[in-house]
Amino acid sequence: MILLRTSLSFAPTRGLCRALSSRLLSSPTPVDGMLDIDVVGGVTKIKDLKVGMEVKVGGWVRTARSQKTLSFLNLNDGSTLSGLQAVLPPSSTPLPTTGASVVCVGSVIESPSSGQDHELQVTSWKTYGLAPDFPLAKKRHTLEYLRTLPHLRHRTNTLAAISRLRSTLSQGIHKFFESEGCINVMAPIITTSDCEGAGEMFSVSCNDDTVGDKFFSKDVYLSVSGQLACEALACGLGSVYTFGPTFRAENSNTKKHLAEFYMLEPELAFEDKFGAMSNCERLIKFLISEAWSTNSEDMEFFSKFYDKTLPEKRDGILTSEFTKLSYTTAITELQNEISKDPTKWQFPNVEFGTDLQTEHERWLCETFTKKPTFIYDYPTSIKPFYMRLNDNPDTVGAFDLLVPGIGELVGGSQREERLDILEERMEGMEGYEWYKDLRRYGTVPHSGYGLGFERLICYLSGVENIREANAFPRSPGVAEM
Amino acid sequence: MILLRTSLSFAPTRGLCRALSSRLLSSPTPVDGMLDIDVVGGVTKIKDLKVGMEVKVGGWVRTARSQKTLSFLNLNDGSTLSGLQAVLPPSSTPLPTTGASVVCVGSVIESPSSGQDHELQVTSWKTYGLAPDFPLAKKRHTLEYLRTLPHLRHRTNTLAAISRLRSTLSQGIHKFFESEGCINVMAPIITTSDCEGAGEMFSVSCNDDTVGDKFFSKDVYLSVSGQLACEALACGLGSVYTFGPTFRAENSNTKKHLAEFYMLEPELAFEDKFGAMSNCERLIKFLISEAWSTNSEDMEFFSKFYDKTLPEKRDGILTSEFTKLSYTTAITELQNEISKDPTKWQFPNVEFGTDLQTEHERWLCETFTKKPTFIYDYPTSIKPFYMRLNDNPDTVGAFDLLVPGIGELVGGSQREERLDILEERMEGMEGYEWYKDLRRYGTVPHSGYGLGFERLICYLSGVENIREANAFPRSPGVAEM
Repeated sequence: MILLRTSLSFAPTRGLCRALSSRLLSSPTPVDGMLDIDVVGGVTKIKDLKVGMEVKVGGWVRTARSQKTLSFLNLNDGSTLSGLQAVLPPSSTPLPTTGASVVCVGSVIESPSSGQDHELQVTSWKTYGLAPDFPLAKKRHTLEYLRTLPHLRHRTNTLAAISRLRSTLSQGIHKFFESEGCINVMAPIITTSDCEGAGEMFSVSCNDDTVGDKFFSKDVYLSVSGQLACEALACGLGSVYTFGPTFRAENSNTKKHLAEFYMLEPELAFEDKFGAMSNCERLIKFLISEAWSTNSEDMEFFSKFYDKTLPEKRDGILTSEFTKLSYTTAITELQNEISKDPTKWQFPNVEFGTDLQTEHERWLCETFTKKPTFIYDYPTSIKPFYMRLNDNPDTVGAFDLLVPGIGELVGGSQREERLDILEERMEGMEGYEWYKDLRRYGTVPHSGYGLGFERLICYLSGVENIREANAFPRSPGVAEM
Repeated sequence: MILLRTSLSFAPTRGLCRALSSRLLSSPTPVDGMLDIDVVGGVTKIKDLKVGMEVKVGGWVRTARSQKTLSFLNLNDGSTLSGLQAVLPPSSTPLPTTGASVVCVGSVIESPSSGQDHELQVTSWKTYGLAPDFPLAKKRHTLEYLRTLPHLRHRTNTLAAISRLRSTLSQGIHKFFESEGCINVMAPIITTSDCEGAGEMFSVSCNDDTVGDKFFSKDVYLSVSGQLACEALACGLGSVYTFGPTFRAENSNTKKHLAEFYMLEPELAFEDKFGAMSNCERLIKFLISEAWSTNSEDMEFFSKFYDKTLPEKRDGILTSEFTKLSYTTAITELQNEISKDPTKWQFPNVEFGTDLQTEHERWLCETFTKKPTFIYDYPTSIKPFYMRLNDNPDTVGAFDLLVPGIGELVGGSQREERLDILEERMEGMEGYEWYKDLRRYGTVPHSGYGLGFERLICYLSGVENIREANAFPRSPGVAEM
């Protein structure tokens, strides 16, 4: 159906269609093993193959080699890391090369080769799309080079494994919050709010003359966080979560920052900061567990090539509680450690009120506690208006989760639910009457957090640069496709 | 812990914190039934209550009434439509009013009242947040009025039911595609591509002086569709889907259009247009089934107040195949019908090449077939470059799904996978070399579609205006919160 065009008539109607020349008829003739394969429909995923099945498989050639009487293709369809060994019968047609697309029909049999349970004994096959000069034909490429090919790089082991992990984690997030009885909401992207009270935002505008100067009749931005909208929904629907794109127009070209990234933001009604921390800990344990059970082959791959300690990390996380340290305790511990040799530290002056630097965060979770660590009750002076003032008003009910190798993975807090205190803290801020209304009408204690999804992927995979964790990373100067 | 503040010390550090006056200490004293309730943590959702449970429940008062010896609260926590009847013991404190937040402790018992299985026999309770002058205190409000209160309207039956339905459908989408072996990907929001080749886009800019004129060194926009990015991922990972926000800067203030809306876009490798239609049909049947099984109370509510035919629609959809009509057949049928009485039609002139108007679409699915109907193989002249040219090149492998009451719910196509034909159709378009690369290197047949999520919600709930289907609707002149 795809390959045979019987009608030669060609008359684009109404002149609206770009003229198509007779080249229409010169589409590349596929190179076949046998001609009787329909390449469309009915394809079985390589991950679902089991010995005894008669199947059609479609995928892309990773390697091809010929022996005297047989040929071997390693075929990958994106569903697994290792792909499938397809054993081809003798054929007069040339073997497809790396990157070509192939459809094979045959039987799944036990494999005599080591390193695989089964292989495909091919009865007929067809090379559908050739791949001359395929840019990924060579086996090894640097991650930096692969970033220049965002439309192709998921055809490599690392990027495909990350894509599968990302999918499993996304599914895991939805499963976890469904099991917790939270409602999935979607915070708006175009917004007039600036949740953080700081931070650079992208502006959104419209050039359509018919709507005048401003499409929305006011200045609008891309959301830096869905928190405030989620607070509104949680105060009525009960606990909710949003999991969607957020944006920061910060000129930071680091391994840990993207201008567009996915953030998970649960907002839990009738929970305090400890309830939110507990929810977060259960979530992360669940996701690690999902990653290793659903994507075991990919996780082994990451352990082999990116971070040999991944299995040990996993076991540590699954079998113990995350540490909880108050900010004040953390400062005391840091002061003790720094006093031993201040010259080892770039920022040796640490006291109550200090915004923790990366070296402090890393020492806390990598050396002092050696595991994921919540730091909570930060100084009021360094945190935004919406965080709940503690009984000791020098601190607010904020918390961060620090993890080895990444630093801050999660930031959250109990929200200020008392109208009079909130009004004091919001003095001078305009346009947030709706936010105060949430405290005017049936206010409830509530808490939430934000988890950077790409950082989580880096943490679980051991892949260092956040540009690998997002298929189409955006950063200063970079917005491909 | 929430209510008792023991420390009176108050010294914001470092002068960075906005000064807080002694009003800190004057937060409203809660009005209590009994004082020994911690309002934080351990709350059971009303939907999970069963006779015999000893529970703590937190929620908002819908109605309150007193009898001689007992008082009754209808309490709603967002988890169900009907909420919970809480029966309060005699108390000297006043009953909370509509909108107030309350926490109750007690036993779930069989209810003597009609219309409910169980109720809560309250032993102690606490009004946590009052709600004087609550704007939704009156029972009935127009949907138009509720739109002026986007931060509160989900505290009403209709909007809460839509929020729950939306969550169930979102979860259902993820479950369906996981069961189909599709990888969940996230197409970028900030993009340089204009997938439709037309349509107004929002521009994104950054005012940070440190990054010069353009943050991304080029003009960028908000995505109108993730299709092209998904095609890249499908050609390597196999079938994928993206489910995220998309944007149209069109100056259309209708019941069917939003400037920001969620779209589901699957892209299926090795499938043709019929495979994609079949996937779409299975998805919609699954989602209807999920909605009625998970949200039965809400669906009954919609049937009662918004569209009495919903149960009939559901049964029709679940028990029969969607109709498939070629565009050419649809035109013939329309011509026959119109010829009976052309004066009944606003657009009576219909011929091959006509872009179907709403009245045509509605007649086709509401009168002619009376069910969801795929129209496929549209004229090449009215469809974009990426749709696959048929053997008869007057038409491309496009399809739309028309549903009664809504019109177009889904638009999709088989994509042009042949490089030479694609190049002809893309003549003059710049910046899409990466898209052509997908056909240069191992091209495969693939197909996909886009489903407007808010339209689906309207279709399933019978709620007419798309502004109810999105918690924070954006349209010309409107971007609240």
